Amino acid sequence: MDFEIIKSLLNEVDTKIVLLVIDGLGGLPMVEGGKTELETANTPNLDSLASKSNCGLSEAISPGITPGSGPSHLALFGYDPLKYQIGRGVLEALGIGFEMTKRDLACRANFATMKDGIITDRRAGRIPTEKNEQLCKLLAEKIGKIDDVEVIIRPGKEHRFVVVFRGDGLSDGLTESDPQKPGLKPLKIEALNEGAKKSAEIANKFIERVNEVLKDERPANTALLRGLAKHPDIPSMKEVFGLKTAAIANYPMYKGLARLVGMDILETGSTIESEFNTLEKNFAKFDFFYVHIKKTDSYGEDGNFEAKVGIIEEVDKFIPRLEALKPEVIVVTGDHSTPAKLKAHSWHPNPFLLYSPVCLADKVQVFSERECASNGGLGRFPATEAIPLMLAHSLRLNKYGA
Amino acid sequence: MDFEIIKSLLNEVDTKIVLLVIDGLGGLPMVEGGKTELETANTPNLDSLASKSNCGLSEAISPGITPGSGPSHLALFGYDPLKYQIGRGVLEALGIGFEMTKRDLACRANFATMKDGIITDRRAGRIPTEKNEQLCKLLAEKIGKIDDVEVIIRPGKEHRFVVVFRGDGLSDGLTESDPQKPGLKPLKIEALNEGAKKSAEIANKFIERVNEVLKDERPANTALLRGLAKHPDIPSMKEVFGLKTAAIANYPMYKGLARLVGMDILETGSTIESEFNTLEKNFAKFDFFYVHIKKTDSYGEDGNFEAKVGIIEEVDKFIPRLEALKPEVIVVTGDHSTPAKLKAHSWHPNPFLLYSPVCLADKVQVFSERECASNGGLGRFPATEAIPLMLAHSLRLNKYGA
Repeated sequence: MDFEIIKSLLNEVDTKIVLLVIDGLGGLPMVEGGKTELETANTPNLDSLASKSNCGLSEAISPGITPGSGPSHLALFGYDPLKYQIGRGVLEALGIGFEMTKRDLACRANFATMKDGIITDRRAGRIPTEKNEQLCKLLAEKIGKIDDVEVIIRPGKEHRFVVVFRGDGLSDGLTESDPQKPGLKPLKIEALNEGAKKSAEIANKFIERVNEVLKDERPANTALLRGLAKHPDIPSMKEVFGLKTAAIANYPMYKGLARLVGMDILETGSTIESEFNTLEKNFAKFDFFYVHIKKTDSYGEDGNFEAKVGIIEEVDKFIPRLEALKPEVIVVTGDHSTPAKLKAHSWHPNPFLLYSPVCLADKVQVFSERECASNGGLGRFPATEAIPLMLAHSLRLNKYGA
Repeated sequence: MDFEIIKSLLNEVDTKIVLLVIDGLGGLPMVEGGKTELETANTPNLDSLASKSNCGLSEAISPGITPGSGPSHLALFGYDPLKYQIGRGVLEALGIGFEMTKRDLACRANFATMKDGIITDRRAGRIPTEKNEQLCKLLAEKIGKIDDVEVIIRPGKEHRFVVVFRGDGLSDGLTESDPQKPGLKPLKIEALNEGAKKSAEIANKFIERVNEVLKDERPANTALLRGLAKHPDIPSMKEVFGLKTAAIANYPMYKGLARLVGMDILETGSTIESEFNTLEKNFAKFDFFYVHIKKTDSYGEDGNFEAKVGIIEEVDKFIPRLEALKPEVIVVTGDHSTPAKLKAHSWHPNPFLLYSPVCLADKVQVFSERECASNGGLGRFPATEAIPLMLAHSLRLNKYGA
């Protein structure tokens, strides 16, 4: 739905929405004819909630397209993930918990080994993280600024680090310096449009400075830059949907994604219980809460079916506490599927339930992929429709036309 | 579907379509776990029709968006309501039964009270309708024309009236004169684009003339103009869908909407029975009949669950007479939902059935929101798809491509 239309319909009311994202929730049976993780899990509370909800299957991007966490979350937050693209550098910066500003251009960087101008190892022998941290500290000391642009350097794991250029007039639309295989020269970073020329110049000067500072280091004596990307120009959920929003998430990437759309990030602990404690403590202060459960996805990626089932069952125990808060709308869904069978994100649509006192419950009695498919009144639908549905059910949208 | 494609596929055949719109049909249970109005109603004939129909849930605009009657009807008539917008002034004119032409610019007008150039009461103390009628007559006598533009004035209820400017070169894209709250000067009407300059000039001159004519009246001594809108440039259903169309409706607004898309308006009485009599009497003369039942919506808006159930049951009794006419296609649906629980239009999708001897009946056995949701073969779909489905099932569309 066009943002201008949504904005023109917004109604100021004091109602609350909780979006509970169980990351990678959807799954597959390990053997043909078997049950999925969600079907296997004993979830009396989710089933009871589903039986009074409007259910369906959501898709973040398009049928058959497996989403990364960036686009899958943007879709659930109401943004067309094909229109609002988050560059790889930005995701990397968010992933290490770096707080980006709108003036920032971020890159994924690798320490690498160069000999006689030729890259001999693109990962510098996967140097230990401690060495990475030392080198980042050294670079930060030596390269504080390039021209009028501030340079911020943050270590990641092994050979990976993040470089953020902060200044005016930076823009994306840049090639990468990584030649993609050893035995080649690093590439000059080039501007793909007129507006990116300054950024290309800064990035190339940065690489020259790195080469000077690290010239006596071995094996990490250069850096390769990839995924150079500007902070996306994305309107906040407050601006577009009129919502005062808060995120309850443990992992930096998800906090970063939430920050991109203007959410306040609430302090919380590393357990599911602490996330629900945080929700309760802050319930009066916001209109919209995004609560993120990470480990279903992690265990899915590990191929650990039983552990994923366990996390779903653990989440189920907190549903009564969520209901007791009496938000006008509760949505429980995944951002994408992560079947343990595939050990990876997948394209399978997400089981989705929307509960509200003014929803028309459908015939779903058990919260599962297949019940949502067969009996869900919402059918299979684009995840970007979730926010308009949440706004409607919390009575936040006026009538369109007379 | 693109109109040019539809037009290129039209097949001339002598088949008939009846679209029965039960206004505000969809509903909600009054208490959680209860039944909707349609589920409560005893509807053996609609259920029997549904059991041999293709069913689903239609949405006029977009998921979560509550439609007004204008856009919701346009969608059912096959027009994208976001593309074909009907201005507020036009709807107001249609609502009082005024027959607009394509040269007309219509406004909602209020009688108001002004003192020393300041609006002191935007509604002139809600003058009685009789007084309104007198003032409209007076204004009509004194202001027949402004420049080359004819001025037509029609009373509404209390302080409300309609002004239609009829002439060449009129256009919308105009600001309003209503300052929105008392204690402020009325605003000058301004053109938002070059083409609307003449219209702005005419509207401002009209207000000056009103002020002269009413200068000794109290409390209604001026007029505020809002929602200035041109007759929409909308192709007729004959032109786009090849249908000779007729409307059977009691209320001016719906006759007006039907007239906008080129329907003939058939004379009918105020009861549901008289509407079906009209259908039978005129059945040979048209290809497509739009039959509108109003009171389901009215009782929904009143919060009168039982009375809404009663109207649905009354409509049900006429279904055998409708079937006896043997139209090639029967569609029964709502334009939007009006749950008595909400006392207002809502965003909930509309139960929809399409019967035709060449439809593939799905598993729906009872005509209800939830049966359509769970067992409807059409799923949840945009209401603009209804007309192409009706054309197809009446064998009016040729194959696309070879």
